[in-house]
Amino acid sequence: MMTAHRKSNGDTTNFARRHIGPSARDVAAMLETVGAKSVDALMAETLPASIRQAAPLDLGKPLSETEAIAHMGELAAQNQVFTSLIGQGYSGTILPAVIQRNILENPAWYTAYTPYQPEISQGRLEALFNFQTMICDLTGLDVANASLLDEATAAAEAMALAERHSRVEAKAFFVDKDVHPQTLAVMRTRAEPLGWNLIVGDPLTDLDKADVLGALLQYPGSSGALRDLRPAIAALKAKGALAIVAADLLALTLLASPGELGADIAIGSAQRFGVPMGYGGPHAAYMAVRDALKRSLPGRIVGLSVDSRGMPAYRLALQTREQHIRREKATSNICTAQVLLAVIAAMYAVYHGPEGLSQIARQVHRRAAVLAAGLRKLGFAPHSDSFFDTLSVDAGAKRAEIVARAAAEKINLGVGETALRIALDETTTPATVEAVWRAFGGQLAYAELDATTREALPEALKRTTAFLTHPVFHAHRSETEMLRYMRKLSDRDLALDRAMIPLGSCTMKLNATTEMMPLTWPEFGSLHPFAPREQAKGYHALFARLEKWLCDITGYDAISLQPNSGAQGEYAGLLAIRGYHAARGEAHRKICLIPSSAHGTNPASAAMVGMDVVVVACEKNGDVDVNDLRAKADKHANDLAAIMITYPSTHGVFEEHIREICDIVHGHGGQVYLDGANLNAQVGLSRPGDYGADVSHLNLHKTFCIPHGGGGPGMGPIGVKAHLAPFLPGHPATRGDAPVGPVSAAPFGSASILTISYIYILMMGGEGLKRATEIAILNANYIAARLDAHFPVLYKNARGRVAHECIVDPRALKTTSGVTVDDIAKRLIDYGFHAPTMSFPVPGTLMIEPTESESKAELDRFCDAMIAIRKEIGEVEAGRFKIEASPLRHAPHTVHDIADDAWARAYSRAEGCFPDGVSRTDKYWSPVGRVDNVYGDRNLVCSCPPVSDYAEAAE
Amino acid sequence: MMTAHRKSNGDTTNFARRHIGPSARDVAAMLETVGAKSVDALMAETLPASIRQAAPLDLGKPLSETEAIAHMGELAAQNQVFTSLIGQGYSGTILPAVIQRNILENPAWYTAYTPYQPEISQGRLEALFNFQTMICDLTGLDVANASLLDEATAAAEAMALAERHSRVEAKAFFVDKDVHPQTLAVMRTRAEPLGWNLIVGDPLTDLDKADVLGALLQYPGSSGALRDLRPAIAALKAKGALAIVAADLLALTLLASPGELGADIAIGSAQRFGVPMGYGGPHAAYMAVRDALKRSLPGRIVGLSVDSRGMPAYRLALQTREQHIRREKATSNICTAQVLLAVIAAMYAVYHGPEGLSQIARQVHRRAAVLAAGLRKLGFAPHSDSFFDTLSVDAGAKRAEIVARAAAEKINLGVGETALRIALDETTTPATVEAVWRAFGGQLAYAELDATTREALPEALKRTTAFLTHPVFHAHRSETEMLRYMRKLSDRDLALDRAMIPLGSCTMKLNATTEMMPLTWPEFGSLHPFAPREQAKGYHALFARLEKWLCDITGYDAISLQPNSGAQGEYAGLLAIRGYHAARGEAHRKICLIPSSAHGTNPASAAMVGMDVVVVACEKNGDVDVNDLRAKADKHANDLAAIMITYPSTHGVFEEHIREICDIVHGHGGQVYLDGANLNAQVGLSRPGDYGADVSHLNLHKTFCIPHGGGGPGMGPIGVKAHLAPFLPGHPATRGDAPVGPVSAAPFGSASILTISYIYILMMGGEGLKRATEIAILNANYIAARLDAHFPVLYKNARGRVAHECIVDPRALKTTSGVTVDDIAKRLIDYGFHAPTMSFPVPGTLMIEPTESESKAELDRFCDAMIAIRKEIGEVEAGRFKIEASPLRHAPHTVHDIADDAWARAYSRAEGCFPDGVSRTDKYWSPVGRVDNVYGDRNLVCSCPPVSDYAEAAE
Repeated sequence: MMTAHRKSNGDTTNFARRHIGPSARDVAAMLETVGAKSVDALMAETLPASIRQAAPLDLGKPLSETEAIAHMGELAAQNQVFTSLIGQGYSGTILPAVIQRNILENPAWYTAYTPYQPEISQGRLEALFNFQTMICDLTGLDVANASLLDEATAAAEAMALAERHSRVEAKAFFVDKDVHPQTLAVMRTRAEPLGWNLIVGDPLTDLDKADVLGALLQYPGSSGALRDLRPAIAALKAKGALAIVAADLLALTLLASPGELGADIAIGSAQRFGVPMGYGGPHAAYMAVRDALKRSLPGRIVGLSVDSRGMPAYRLALQTREQHIRREKATSNICTAQVLLAVIAAMYAVYHGPEGLSQIARQVHRRAAVLAAGLRKLGFAPHSDSFFDTLSVDAGAKRAEIVARAAAEKINLGVGETALRIALDETTTPATVEAVWRAFGGQLAYAELDATTREALPEALKRTTAFLTHPVFHAHRSETEMLRYMRKLSDRDLALDRAMIPLGSCTMKLNATTEMMPLTWPEFGSLHPFAPREQAKGYHALFARLEKWLCDITGYDAISLQPNSGAQGEYAGLLAIRGYHAARGEAHRKICLIPSSAHGTNPASAAMVGMDVVVVACEKNGDVDVNDLRAKADKHANDLAAIMITYPSTHGVFEEHIREICDIVHGHGGQVYLDGANLNAQVGLSRPGDYGADVSHLNLHKTFCIPHGGGGPGMGPIGVKAHLAPFLPGHPATRGDAPVGPVSAAPFGSASILTISYIYILMMGGEGLKRATEIAILNANYIAARLDAHFPVLYKNARGRVAHECIVDPRALKTTSGVTVDDIAKRLIDYGFHAPTMSFPVPGTLMIEPTESESKAELDRFCDAMIAIRKEIGEVEAGRFKIEASPLRHAPHTVHDIADDAWARAYSRAEGCFPDGVSRTDKYWSPVGRVDNVYGDRNLVCSCPPVSDYAEAAE
Repeated sequence: MMTAHRKSNGDTTNFARRHIGPSARDVAAMLETVGAKSVDALMAETLPASIRQAAPLDLGKPLSETEAIAHMGELAAQNQVFTSLIGQGYSGTILPAVIQRNILENPAWYTAYTPYQPEISQGRLEALFNFQTMICDLTGLDVANASLLDEATAAAEAMALAERHSRVEAKAFFVDKDVHPQTLAVMRTRAEPLGWNLIVGDPLTDLDKADVLGALLQYPGSSGALRDLRPAIAALKAKGALAIVAADLLALTLLASPGELGADIAIGSAQRFGVPMGYGGPHAAYMAVRDALKRSLPGRIVGLSVDSRGMPAYRLALQTREQHIRREKATSNICTAQVLLAVIAAMYAVYHGPEGLSQIARQVHRRAAVLAAGLRKLGFAPHSDSFFDTLSVDAGAKRAEIVARAAAEKINLGVGETALRIALDETTTPATVEAVWRAFGGQLAYAELDATTREALPEALKRTTAFLTHPVFHAHRSETEMLRYMRKLSDRDLALDRAMIPLGSCTMKLNATTEMMPLTWPEFGSLHPFAPREQAKGYHALFARLEKWLCDITGYDAISLQPNSGAQGEYAGLLAIRGYHAARGEAHRKICLIPSSAHGTNPASAAMVGMDVVVVACEKNGDVDVNDLRAKADKHANDLAAIMITYPSTHGVFEEHIREICDIVHGHGGQVYLDGANLNAQVGLSRPGDYGADVSHLNLHKTFCIPHGGGGPGMGPIGVKAHLAPFLPGHPATRGDAPVGPVSAAPFGSASILTISYIYILMMGGEGLKRATEIAILNANYIAARLDAHFPVLYKNARGRVAHECIVDPRALKTTSGVTVDDIAKRLIDYGFHAPTMSFPVPGTLMIEPTESESKAELDRFCDAMIAIRKEIGEVEAGRFKIEASPLRHAPHTVHDIADDAWARAYSRAEGCFPDGVSRTDKYWSPVGRVDNVYGDRNLVCSCPPVSDYAEAAE
């Protein structure tokens, strides 16, 4: 704590040198390999001159790491940590220290990538499986995903799911008037472009009359009221509509589950299971469904399958769906999850177990019951006699006075339209309760009322079913056991702390320790997103400066920090375009042009805002076919809303015609949405806002160092030109009157992790950022140069350069040897590497993005491995063994394999496990062999069965 | 930061439940196995009734983890972090964040044990090897150890080494008057009981006349003066005396090395290489010597040897020496090292490399040179024109005013007897320099003086030789590379975060995350040990309460927190006894009785205070032979000084006669030193101060949760009865007039890690501590019960109970099968365990201490492994294979072994690598096979040779 006291050390450290992998000497050697005279010359050969930015990026003098921490200490001191009893979906919670330090502060967990490669992700897949089991158990439903962005978007996703599955034809949806206001607001945003009518009312009285496809009910209500929802749910089901319940996980430890009440779907937030509020996020939301709906469940689902030896192995289930294949027919653009936070919530349950969670819940409830008794005594009867942890009371004329007195006690109350809300949580003490009474004008003693107060849970709603019965929730009650469990899981995974993760378009760069440090300071972690703004001065100073910097970097005029994923950013950007057209009386502009090479989220996002996707062809070299574009723009000139284009392209090349493309679209009345996924190739060199783009999302978890967290959190702020600024997402807590509603539950998205990007920019400065971009491009061209002779590089620009990534093409080898892209990817595991991106954007190819943070030594290790793999393919071609019998197909090799005395393979154990150049001493062992995806999707298992079933599943 | 804002959560958490492994249900099952009716009944059967403490331990209500962190925040806020320019061996420094988080805050590093088992310690052994290489390079000497406790004790050790090797017979030793005052004070403490005469003077003028066996010279001097020591060293060598140089490592990057100046020995502190000052420690001190002295080098030395396959492997070299075999003839009782801090210092050098370290040194020197120029301008000429980073000036009448003005700028100056001292460091900025000028009454601009100032290093003393040329100091300049290097090394080691470490007498219990957190807060880390006391109010409040608690726990009346290791505690305790006798006119009392079962440090410590050791026999059952004791006490009644006894005994049993033993010694005028190594069996159950002991040291790194750090830091405060309190260690900075001098450089030893023990006691409370002791005893008796039938338990008390540890005896199996204790220890590695303590106190046996933190599941896993090993021994007995061909002798098995296609062993690969019950998925692989100790001691290699030589060494 009090790191602000640390002193600056002047100029002996240079963070950019620590962030960027290659040394000056390495850079010289690499330039020689790529055949460029200088870094400047290479840039001139890589980027079109027409888009190069004129003035150098000036963001002020970069700070050293020590100075940056001191500066963050000053910002932190401007935030005031009150006790927030605001509720509304966000609660104080205690993150156990052992989990904080060994997961949230541990690079083995936070630098991991999304577990698309299951063999090297078994640890976090198990943690997520525990999460799903916990959600299924608590909600009483059959299948849960592992995780959504926040409760409000989860509600919107659930509505979309219901819309597809409801037997009711009406495009109307009922929303409980006692849902959290931000949930309703996000649902309105989602419903409006799709023409769905939202009906808000009291489910106990208003549901009969409503002709709705489904309904969202909050349990307990946002006001705290605990209602028996069974009649409402029964009424819904009677008419063929779907019942969705937004439920509080802690309350569910004491209450009958949504499944038992009859719900089809449950959604909610897992924040209060140990995840700091963080002024809005990140946290993991959940969704669970009845079995019949499981194949429509959005987001990522971990399933149990088997590996090549028939042993159980986890992997992401049902991945070939929604935006991946449905594209513009998708009803969801969900791409990332909140893995790191879901892992923390699951570990919180592992640590406390069912009896510990119930004990916490009972304590919170008891405090609330005593608080209610006291308030009654003081003349403020809570609205509802049944509640879990939240009370609403009318304070009448005394309202302002009470709120002020609470503030003097450093307590924030929830200030509703008429009522005051008081939501208790795990951190509430008797002293807090007494302070609330004082705010309401009374001096009462907690102990006295405690003795005479009874609980306020209705008998009919009490939970009678067991939960978290799996042994994993029972075996880790001591810190030692907990620590070892987390270590064991992390050791199964391969993350950035052990090796390069050369994923195309995912920018797995350094997540520097200094960038991560302030995140776990209470001044950033403990703020409620709806705390009074004057308590968050440090945050708002940070937001303002970060927005300014991002504008400087991109050439845009305004930024919204709200979207909490890249896909959310796309959605928000398209909503802005839609709002702009509508405001000019051109609401009919609904055609969205999307090149055939686009990421699947692009068409899915367009569909979500009611746009119609028209695909633009690509040329052989991967560039957009400008003639086709022009033809389609002409054809749809009257209805053209936008183009969505990625730059540099998903093919890893700076297309020459980007300005022309923007001009064509503008010339036909459309707007240019430039997907910012590849911004890491541009920072300091070119600015989308300068060469024609109107709006972009910026993946802060790619270009700006937010760690991938094993599959989330991400952040996808958008930048817009001035004409779109009025159409940035609003929020009831900040800009309730904005023409476009919110896309996230919290006004500033996952605010706490914005600290990471802020510190990165602070320490790099303009020059450092530009250097990072240059080296990212150099690294990619170096890999392209080293690999081209072995695996042809598919796309280059006219001068033979790639941007910050390259696609290598082993497809011809499939003909000559039978080798698949999967074989190469899995064989890389034997060499100690995570695979590159497979089959995107071109099936059968590999896309490699080294980023600027990888040193020449690591790039060489990777290239050497790829070249050695090419030699192995050559051995198949030469007939040494068939592909089925080769180490390529048997990869990854495990300790199970090598321990077989009956080794009957056509190559030696050492060739299998320690191919060319792999250290035996420091070998990473994949814990399972190649995972069978088909088996897993056919036999879907998504929550913990009894342990004994694992072995059976394998048979 | 600002964790003080965290709120209490009342009673939902109970830290003792997290600290203690077994659940209530486990305890019941274990009691059944051991055949005890209850925990109370087991205690009654284990401890003699005569020593049970009457009143329960009352230390106040235990705090939850959240409350404890909040409380520590309040203490931290009472410390004031000034910029300390005090120097005197302690400097501000910047611990790189990536090292802080991934070593100092990473349980994989801090929970490791001393690397006695080299196969599972290759990671930290490599880090320590880097440390030794760094020290050799910088000092220009041949062999360095990996680490001593602090610079002052290193100086005392060097003096003792010189005394053994000098060709001069005189028992006089010369000390530079410009050494740090605490160094001189510690040397005085050390010299006096041994009758060595210390002569203090100016080496450039006073050395000629002195008939001395050696001399200690400071370089640069404590005053900052940089002198050419060559003539003084030459004069010493001419007379056959040894030259010891205390050198500043950062200065050595720019200065000719001690070796080049002709020194035989160099000592000093590695603190300023990234290790926080911590109000005194812990830090690593170093010692390096010429080749001829290497076999007398005290402390731990890492050497390179080969493993069973002839591959290079690190291990501790020359371990069978000094107190281990020399016992009372030892000249040093050094036992622990400061591994964690040495690792940090070495990593600091790996991170910065030679060019980075030089750059830091040049910047510090430049700031000092500019400061000097300004001071001259203001009329305060520094004493010396040659200096590195420290200036001394006479301020005359203005002295008090200047110090006060500096304090107003939040700057501490060094206040010498006449001069003021200003020592700059890595954290010094131009603003700091300007503030110092203001304190001296002038408004000067740094930039102006910078332009006209020249450096102040004499040409003749400039370094001309290269250092840190090994590739490890060049390959890790990016944070990514650095992170991966630290991860790679830690993965090679087996620490408490992966498995039980069942070391007898080492108490490897949980080091809870919450206990570790405040350690890295600047309010605890950034305080200079000689900062004004009013800036350290938080620390002193902590000291006072910790002393009170330790008195309550032990029954003593006073505590000294100064000794920074258990051995130092023994030494301090015996000094107190010696002082007490002398004060009563009985200085002739010099006989120290020591049972034959004692740890080797006991006789070594006795020798260091000039006592003569008389060994007391033990009975067959391991108890002290009371008759022999009585006889020897009678015989030496007139000269009896003390007995040193461990309780419960090193045999793991509560002897019945402890009170009687104490009475006999007291009856003959002696004092009782009770070795506190086994206090974990007594806390809350019995108090040494109650049943007759006069003084004990308390190993805070055993009983009170300071992590072992891979081999240090430790802390060994002593508790004494009131009559010995006046003879606790003094210190020139606090109690300069005490009858006994200091034993450590800093008045409160390694003050910063006292936070760990403090928080532990704070969260456990008296009842929790007692419960921990009870479960530690239950766990040990459970292991004894499970293993006795397979490996006989050697010592039990009359009721068949062991204390908190047990010795199992496989010696009979050596006859029947040839199996050695080494075979069992190494085979345990294959089962995923660190070995128990080998051959102490009884050769050929294993001592096991489970501690209270291990769960029943882990105890069972360990017992199952031991029983499976017994079965394997049975297979040798049954003739399945000879011991030489058995998996026992080939253990540990490595990936090198299993990859051999030509496996020609009498057992399968799986039997070798995955014996009974070992998880294949989560297998820990020892990176090397069994290490050859003899080879390593015969071919001593203690610093990095060129990498190419490694392979050769193996041939």
